[in-house]
Amino acid sequence: MTDQPWIAVDAMGGDEGLEVMLAGVARARRRFEGLHFYLVGDEARIRAGLHSHPNLSANSEIVHAPEVVGSSEKPSQAIRRSKVTSMGIAIDLVKQGRAAAMVSSGNTGALMAMAKLSLRMLPGIDRPALAAPLPTLGDNDVVMLDLGANTEVDARNLVQFAVMGAAYARVILDLDRPRVALLNIGSEDQKGTDWIREAAAELRAATHLPLDFTGFVEGDKLARGHVDVIVCDGFAGNIALKTAEGTARFVGDLLKRAFTSSVRSKLGFLISRPATQLLRDHLDPNNHNGAVFLGLKGIVMKSHGGANELGVATAIANAAKMARADLTRRIAEDLGLEHVA
Amino acid sequence: MTDQPWIAVDAMGGDEGLEVMLAGVARARRRFEGLHFYLVGDEARIRAGLHSHPNLSANSEIVHAPEVVGSSEKPSQAIRRSKVTSMGIAIDLVKQGRAAAMVSSGNTGALMAMAKLSLRMLPGIDRPALAAPLPTLGDNDVVMLDLGANTEVDARNLVQFAVMGAAYARVILDLDRPRVALLNIGSEDQKGTDWIREAAAELRAATHLPLDFTGFVEGDKLARGHVDVIVCDGFAGNIALKTAEGTARFVGDLLKRAFTSSVRSKLGFLISRPATQLLRDHLDPNNHNGAVFLGLKGIVMKSHGGANELGVATAIANAAKMARADLTRRIAEDLGLEHVA
Repeated sequence: MTDQPWIAVDAMGGDEGLEVMLAGVARARRRFEGLHFYLVGDEARIRAGLHSHPNLSANSEIVHAPEVVGSSEKPSQAIRRSKVTSMGIAIDLVKQGRAAAMVSSGNTGALMAMAKLSLRMLPGIDRPALAAPLPTLGDNDVVMLDLGANTEVDARNLVQFAVMGAAYARVILDLDRPRVALLNIGSEDQKGTDWIREAAAELRAATHLPLDFTGFVEGDKLARGHVDVIVCDGFAGNIALKTAEGTARFVGDLLKRAFTSSVRSKLGFLISRPATQLLRDHLDPNNHNGAVFLGLKGIVMKSHGGANELGVATAIANAAKMARADLTRRIAEDLGLEHVA
Repeated sequence: MTDQPWIAVDAMGGDEGLEVMLAGVARARRRFEGLHFYLVGDEARIRAGLHSHPNLSANSEIVHAPEVVGSSEKPSQAIRRSKVTSMGIAIDLVKQGRAAAMVSSGNTGALMAMAKLSLRMLPGIDRPALAAPLPTLGDNDVVMLDLGANTEVDARNLVQFAVMGAAYARVILDLDRPRVALLNIGSEDQKGTDWIREAAAELRAATHLPLDFTGFVEGDKLARGHVDVIVCDGFAGNIALKTAEGTARFVGDLLKRAFTSSVRSKLGFLISRPATQLLRDHLDPNNHNGAVFLGLKGIVMKSHGGANELGVATAIANAAKMARADLTRRIAEDLGLEHVA
């Protein structure tokens, strides 16, 4: 894998529009000199938008796509139009080997369905899982998966998610043997569903894998930094991720109320502002944007639909890091280990 | 139901010990003059502990129990010892009609199993659900259930939870037609599992019920105050509840770090302290303590194992409020309505 990868960007997907996508690409380009981009979408609109971003002219190529996947379009319908939509054409650039990764802020279900059909799964993997890093109190982020690709799973899926999540953590967090836990509603052995207990037994026995299985982790300990990878089904993962986002925003809103409740508290807030600004940056979802579909033969990065310029740049930077580290090959190698058992 | 109910308190359960339980009872008694208590546990130790709480002497009766349910004791084992443990004897006081409610900070699984066996379910209810109010940005708390009693559910269970949760909200939050939503991973109709979609269809059709079904709610909107009751299986509910608790603590820890990171920020914090103290009180789990098992023929209140004096007092006050409002009868009436359909 080259150190100067090409990234295919679905320039039309997302709630914030083409301008935010292009601004995010330009920002990522300023941070990482070596990056090159396929900007996929309406050629005339992209060409017009590029006037505001001269730093992209020498390092990007426009690939015209006449249509866009709708935000509530059904996956089956999106698949039928994959040859003409910006999302479908961006995925195809990965399939052709012209791009090392693709990034989209568009419809998640359509993205997964099209990517699965076009790029196909790695050998031995039944389903892709959506993985993303979350902030913790520790030195490292924690990788969590699945975040919503699979509402129902079995023990075999969970074990595969664990192996893929650990490979991701080894590559992205530079860890030799990531600590992997299963999300559950208690830490005792008999807690949870049959398939969670079965996955725990398999992971406990799989000592040849390059990971340390640490048992169960509960929802109140996700951000403690005691584990590196948290594995769950896509329903629980999505609930946990969104509840964490919502609660952080809730506490922030209450804080804002508290700080504006009196002249005295407003003064205190102004004095503390540099410190609270650091905290705000630490928790800003745009600084943690980008969930990747693990298990595909290629890197497909989902950026949050509402991501701003910073968020898009973060997702692109993460995709580039995965491409440079050859994440797909590394996961395939680790999955090979699983079958040695 | 009398306005001066007797509450049976499992004085031995919980991580904080007898002293905290008695202090919590004394605190609840100071807040609500009419309450009477059965204090169930080791008679000699309770008698000694009561020296510190003279306000309880005239309003409480000690009921001796020679044994205690262990915190990791299996439900099946706890059931066998139910005639000699403080938890079992406190439940039996409800069954005999001597107490209008019971409160325990002990082993949740054992409490549910013993209560179900001893008190039995209301007609038409298959399983009890654990329900509790959570703080929101709105004027009212939101009632969430199930919080961990049932790891797997079907559509019928979810509909029953909705009816019971709405009855609870009508009684405790004084609402005529509570707004009820199902927790899901998206707001579109096709999202989630089969049983969630099926429950949604049934609730949408059940217009004769005293509730307004508003569809799906996602994890990031739990605390917005847009709904009054959130219904889910016990696995997702437990994950959401604990993730919310953990995230609130996480943000608090980050805030503490931010405020102590420089002399300037420390000064700002000291000035704002009265305001941030209000926020801390609003989020303190001890101010929201007490989850009730809905669907039983009797009021069984689970207090958090680590609840402090304030937390125990809150749980007792909530149990007393439910007893005074005759919650069990009100739920039975609403469940009757369900079968009219």
